[in-house]
Amino acid sequence: MALIVQKFGGSSLATAEHLRRVAHIIARTRNNGHSVVVVVSAMGGETDRLLNLAAEITAVQPPRELDALLSTGEQVSAALLAITLESMKIPARSYLGLQLPLRTDYNHTRARIVELPTEQLQETLTRGIIPIVAGFQGVSPGGDITTLGRGGSDTSAVALAAALRADRCEIHSDVDGVYTADPAICPRARHLRRISYGEMLEMADMGAKILQIRSVELARKFKVPLLIKSSFGGDRCTWIVEEEENEMESAVISGIILSHNEAKLSVIRVPDRPGIAYQILSPLAEADINVDMIIQNASIDGHTDFTFTVPKSELTKARELVEEVIPKIDARELSTDDGIVKISAVGLGIKNCPGVAARMFQTLADEGINIQMISTSDIRLSCVIEAKYGELAVRVLHDLFGLEKNNNLDSFR
Amino acid sequence: MALIVQKFGGSSLATAEHLRRVAHIIARTRNNGHSVVVVVSAMGGETDRLLNLAAEITAVQPPRELDALLSTGEQVSAALLAITLESMKIPARSYLGLQLPLRTDYNHTRARIVELPTEQLQETLTRGIIPIVAGFQGVSPGGDITTLGRGGSDTSAVALAAALRADRCEIHSDVDGVYTADPAICPRARHLRRISYGEMLEMADMGAKILQIRSVELARKFKVPLLIKSSFGGDRCTWIVEEEENEMESAVISGIILSHNEAKLSVIRVPDRPGIAYQILSPLAEADINVDMIIQNASIDGHTDFTFTVPKSELTKARELVEEVIPKIDARELSTDDGIVKISAVGLGIKNCPGVAARMFQTLADEGINIQMISTSDIRLSCVIEAKYGELAVRVLHDLFGLEKNNNLDSFR
Repeated sequence: MALIVQKFGGSSLATAEHLRRVAHIIARTRNNGHSVVVVVSAMGGETDRLLNLAAEITAVQPPRELDALLSTGEQVSAALLAITLESMKIPARSYLGLQLPLRTDYNHTRARIVELPTEQLQETLTRGIIPIVAGFQGVSPGGDITTLGRGGSDTSAVALAAALRADRCEIHSDVDGVYTADPAICPRARHLRRISYGEMLEMADMGAKILQIRSVELARKFKVPLLIKSSFGGDRCTWIVEEEENEMESAVISGIILSHNEAKLSVIRVPDRPGIAYQILSPLAEADINVDMIIQNASIDGHTDFTFTVPKSELTKARELVEEVIPKIDARELSTDDGIVKISAVGLGIKNCPGVAARMFQTLADEGINIQMISTSDIRLSCVIEAKYGELAVRVLHDLFGLEKNNNLDSFR
Repeated sequence: MALIVQKFGGSSLATAEHLRRVAHIIARTRNNGHSVVVVVSAMGGETDRLLNLAAEITAVQPPRELDALLSTGEQVSAALLAITLESMKIPARSYLGLQLPLRTDYNHTRARIVELPTEQLQETLTRGIIPIVAGFQGVSPGGDITTLGRGGSDTSAVALAAALRADRCEIHSDVDGVYTADPAICPRARHLRRISYGEMLEMADMGAKILQIRSVELARKFKVPLLIKSSFGGDRCTWIVEEEENEMESAVISGIILSHNEAKLSVIRVPDRPGIAYQILSPLAEADINVDMIIQNASIDGHTDFTFTVPKSELTKARELVEEVIPKIDARELSTDDGIVKISAVGLGIKNCPGVAARMFQTLADEGINIQMISTSDIRLSCVIEAKYGELAVRVLHDLFGLEKNNNLDSFR
């Protein structure tokens, strides 16, 4: 008999019919002898409906009130799911962030969890009642409602699983797990039964469609096994767990991820003096703009080009900030490009398999795809390429690494 | 400079446009030098939307979860109104029942207020911030969300006004006050500028369209002057206040009210023994069915007929309960009638003007309207009549008492 946290996403809760299906999943888990704590997102479409109501009033909303507004979405689905379970004679009670209380810091719209007392939930479980926790929300030290950022219900669920020392945290949504690539782009993409926290974090761009990536960091920190399942049926699922000791059994490359979220900025002909990078990037840091890849060309006659990427949604703001810096550093000009994508290969075997990078670059070159920028980590290889080649690159790299079948280190030696 | 509680109903908050209009009313009050505390209902249609979501799942919802669900309606409008005011550079903050906290008893869906601390609101006011309180909701001693019954935001507003010792409580809705009769039925109905708490309570059936009648009891208890206004413009309003000492100035009859909410049950040929009324009515009391008028005919050969009214919505349930009693008390049969209405004349002058009742009965008789039941209080005369005569009765009684113009005791002597 295990203690299981089950989180259900908005698409799993969209209608009364969906709620009944979810209630049956919970009932089945309970009938198998497990204790269940449930975490819910807002019903599909509800958060957007609330955002639209606010947007009709004004473009800039005070964060405290936005949180009070948006947190109702999860409150509604928690109450409705409790009603559904009770109608099936399964005792259930909804709990808000304010009621647990799930204590966070003061940062409205992107609060971080500070403390999560479990006495009330433990007592509810002891009485045979299933707690249905409204995800996404908490309460600040001042007693105000806070939210954990879009997709924050996943983080609520993992935090609850950690606090309750649950045996696992299940993330139920409309996807049945992690694949070696986006099946819509790459028909040969293979479902993965198991992936490490580290790989999932490096797959952030793909993973974000499945769960809030912050929840994976939290799961890794507290060693909470995550299970990705579909609430729409089927037996497939993906475990997100710690890396195994014996990596010989692991795949070298677990997946190929294509990200459309990047835009590139190049500061052309900067005098190559110390402190240039700081002068260009510090205004962006102050504006909370996340800079991903950075390259600086070799200096030619005392000048260099300085290139970096930012999230595409931040391009306009980043351009304005960098334009202001251009005259101060005597650079010639700024050029920007949002017609790029980032293609990444992620896998635990990369660090033990030095030939992988070379084969990746060679394969892209063979297809006539120019690599504009490169960045790497122990378990990730990323290239910025022209956007139109994105899907092609996914397919050729998927084939290169043999991802349609299980691949391990031996197959690369 | 006064402290004013302003309550806005759902129809005043239906869209972004409505919210802006309400924000301007609040701003104007503030610019006139007053301190304002705002209480809001759910946006028009929202409570029904939430009830429908629950009804799609099951017909019988656990009250605790229903309260958690419905309370989101007021939370949404409080947050949106705070957003609207902030967008106009007027500092505002929303507060939930859980946050104040507005403490109630354990009675979900019809909780009573137990305690209402005001420190937080006082501090907010001191800082020049307008508190926007989500009406209708509170928190039980166990920390669960409770609600005060349909229309409960009015009661929230009056309770806040009492706790804060506010100078007045304004109820803004889509009606501009109390009339001598429903203008839709009686074209000569006149707007009343002033009415006593007692008269308003006796006008419950008409008053309930304007505000939760419980809030009038609370206002009377704590001597909170109530002001009924329209948020859709116009200068008309009705004060609901204490009776004046000099009643000579008061109208004898303030209004004629027609209620369609009654249904009649007659237990035919009951053996006339002591305890009959108790045996018939106690099952209804246990089922929380409110019995209004009761008459028992004079006994003929040891038998009597026992007739009473209940809310029309409770007729089916009441019929079942009384059918069970029939054999136990050896009554012949139960007959029921939902084709009736109750017509009432309400006014402070009734108790000083004995001829009023006789004139009322005479006037109805002159129109060929049979009076089936009569009940009276110090300030109310009510008759049950056949439903089809309801509107006619309103008009003839309105004329009889000269309500189209100010009428006072002298005019009756």
